[in-house]
Amino acid sequence: MKQIRLNAFAMNAVGHVSPGLWRHPRDRSTEYTRLGHWLDLARTLERGLFDGIFFADVLGAYDVLGGSPAAALRQAAQVPVGDPLLLVPAMATVTEHLGFGVTASLAYEPPFLLARRFSTLDHLTGGRIAWNIVTSYLDSAARAAGRPAQHGHDERYVLAEDSLRLMLRLWEESWEDGAVLADRAAGIYADPARVHAIRHRGPEHSLDAIHLCEPSPQRVPVLYQAGSSPAGRGFAARHAECVFVSGPTAAVIAPRVAALREAVRAAGRQPEEVLVFCLATVVVAATDAEAHDLLAEYRSYASTEGALALLSGWTGIDYAAVPLDSEVRFIENDAGRSAMENFTRADPDRRWTVREVAGQVALGGHGPVFAGSASRVADLMGDWMERTGADGFNLAYAVMPESFEAVVGHLIPELQHRAMFKTGYASGTLRRKLFGHDTRTARNA
Amino acid sequence: MKQIRLNAFAMNAVGHVSPGLWRHPRDRSTEYTRLGHWLDLARTLERGLFDGIFFADVLGAYDVLGGSPAAALRQAAQVPVGDPLLLVPAMATVTEHLGFGVTASLAYEPPFLLARRFSTLDHLTGGRIAWNIVTSYLDSAARAAGRPAQHGHDERYVLAEDSLRLMLRLWEESWEDGAVLADRAAGIYADPARVHAIRHRGPEHSLDAIHLCEPSPQRVPVLYQAGSSPAGRGFAARHAECVFVSGPTAAVIAPRVAALREAVRAAGRQPEEVLVFCLATVVVAATDAEAHDLLAEYRSYASTEGALALLSGWTGIDYAAVPLDSEVRFIENDAGRSAMENFTRADPDRRWTVREVAGQVALGGHGPVFAGSASRVADLMGDWMERTGADGFNLAYAVMPESFEAVVGHLIPELQHRAMFKTGYASGTLRRKLFGHDTRTARNA
Repeated sequence: MKQIRLNAFAMNAVGHVSPGLWRHPRDRSTEYTRLGHWLDLARTLERGLFDGIFFADVLGAYDVLGGSPAAALRQAAQVPVGDPLLLVPAMATVTEHLGFGVTASLAYEPPFLLARRFSTLDHLTGGRIAWNIVTSYLDSAARAAGRPAQHGHDERYVLAEDSLRLMLRLWEESWEDGAVLADRAAGIYADPARVHAIRHRGPEHSLDAIHLCEPSPQRVPVLYQAGSSPAGRGFAARHAECVFVSGPTAAVIAPRVAALREAVRAAGRQPEEVLVFCLATVVVAATDAEAHDLLAEYRSYASTEGALALLSGWTGIDYAAVPLDSEVRFIENDAGRSAMENFTRADPDRRWTVREVAGQVALGGHGPVFAGSASRVADLMGDWMERTGADGFNLAYAVMPESFEAVVGHLIPELQHRAMFKTGYASGTLRRKLFGHDTRTARNA
Repeated sequence: MKQIRLNAFAMNAVGHVSPGLWRHPRDRSTEYTRLGHWLDLARTLERGLFDGIFFADVLGAYDVLGGSPAAALRQAAQVPVGDPLLLVPAMATVTEHLGFGVTASLAYEPPFLLARRFSTLDHLTGGRIAWNIVTSYLDSAARAAGRPAQHGHDERYVLAEDSLRLMLRLWEESWEDGAVLADRAAGIYADPARVHAIRHRGPEHSLDAIHLCEPSPQRVPVLYQAGSSPAGRGFAARHAECVFVSGPTAAVIAPRVAALREAVRAAGRQPEEVLVFCLATVVVAATDAEAHDLLAEYRSYASTEGALALLSGWTGIDYAAVPLDSEVRFIENDAGRSAMENFTRADPDRRWTVREVAGQVALGGHGPVFAGSASRVADLMGDWMERTGADGFNLAYAVMPESFEAVVGHLIPELQHRAMFKTGYASGTLRRKLFGHDTRTARNA
């Protein structure tokens, strides 16, 4: 079977997808404001040969539950949250190979400046940067930008298309290969004949400017996308090199992966050239019994209130107004409908209450929890890969950094022993490490 | 006399204010895309007890000269240029005390996201961040943002006032002291009753949101300002804690410092509570003769074309259309008039040609060059401080990092010997190091 790709899934925040776990006595995620916290994590991940660290982000507080951010603040459910891009240069100083995937929103960042940020990071990391392109889903973020509400879901993707095309032109068309001579004798740094202004007139953005950065090792960050709506899937099929999906069972994920690969094929690309990463949380210990004890211990710290704050934000539905023991029905809404749907579809014969779904979400969000000895977890991961056709995982933490240390200490050696995981990093840029070449296969149509 | 404050003045670019010097055989500024370059510089500056490093920035290419960026590209005159904020987290990993002053433009950065960036940096650096507030001066940056031209000069300050007030409210009023409990036993991270949404309706920006970051060590970055126009001076008088000025002689600078302090007094503040930093380039060696030889060597690499590209950008006047040997007249224009005025006022009896001004600007921009032995340079700096009433210098480099290494090796010990420079860092945040306390004295009116 193909080797498993692994990212650590994190956020510049206290609580990510396991709200309440910051209360665990060994958890250190409250140290997220300190550089040393992130340097230690970077070293741990590179020691474990993780392909990358993948940073989630939001640009507003979760304030749908009860109409206020109170629950999210109490539980530190993705708020407070710092800028993830600023962690990358520091973590790059103590690593040589680890990739950095960072979420940044096309809904709020000016594309000309965002293009410069990613070029700067690609330079500083020696070609290890990836970008998770999102269009944002929280009305609170729109209000923070001075808008009464966010744009409609499909309109957001039209605007995202405009921004991305502009940025791709800045990265790929402004500076030709060989434009930088750095010729001290001739006194020419860059050849102006090979640097071109990009003129763009789109529905949202206009621009007439050269890119401010010279070509970086990858030019374009490795492009991630995470939307599972039809508009999001179409965007991914055209542009994404990696896709991040989340759902609680292989039965939920498999048809999504298939639909994505079909959309990639329909967009004129090779279906297998897009790498699919699935959300998962691993609780691994020396024995199955120890791991299950650990999982029970973790669950005792999980916060239902925090989970409801996240679920309300994801779906736009205020679950404070819904009895916790009422049955979850299929919820049709604009973008976030998968939050409940994930669970109701996972086991069609089971009836879920809101409380039960919140309990599941409170440890590992929408993703599965793989608990057991290294051997047992390797079985579960291999089975998941085979049944879904996915390429790897974004591994969330329950307890920071204990969850990642356990993966590196217990799981990685077992995966390597089974030839399911690499025993060393490939050389070159992140794109070359992931795909074996430096060419971005998705071309600007 | 008061001790001298020193910042290193740099840019995430090849050429800063000494265009052409990248051609010098010992210059390493072409390595600006590499992390190691900046880590080494950070270590050097902290060894020399520099108060900080101050990063300039522009968001467009210098394309006024000849109506194209060709000259700027050939000479690497502030283009290519990367994002300076992204250098800070890396440099913070190898330093404990060095401050980081970073230029960021209120004309183009969304204030809600910019506020989060600075809070994140203030957390990660342990309270060492400063912000040089600019409103930008290049039409090329406006075109990169999709506007036909930039706003008028005074209008830019009205908009800047709106953005800054919004950001100050996010930093100072959203999270009360004590809002973060991080109480594991009670399961409360932040007390929602002490976290407040900021509602702002201004001429440019509206917002209804909590700040996404918990309070950082300084809450508000140390605020720098660098404008010398009446509108800029008024802005500085209301908000700035440090001001950066540039001019070739003490006679040019002294009245500006006096006018600034008077404006600070008129704004109801203590005139001396604003620290004034002057641009200067130091060429120091073991003896006066060696230093002058070194200066002559440096000048042989300076680029007139690069200087004209900068001058044209600063003034908005295309000097490609002006004979180089024509006499410079007093040039009255919107914001950048000080570029030539600096020199024509420096010595009222002297008549300057465009070529002569460009020759001066090509090494050290508008600022003086202090060349000589450590003793001689210390005399010149002390004399400058006394005659201008300034508090310190932003020291530009001629050759990177040689210029800074020479300052650390030769000049700092001499200044310390004369009790003109500190012999160790004070403890605490950057604001405490600079002012002896953690209170921002400029209050939001």
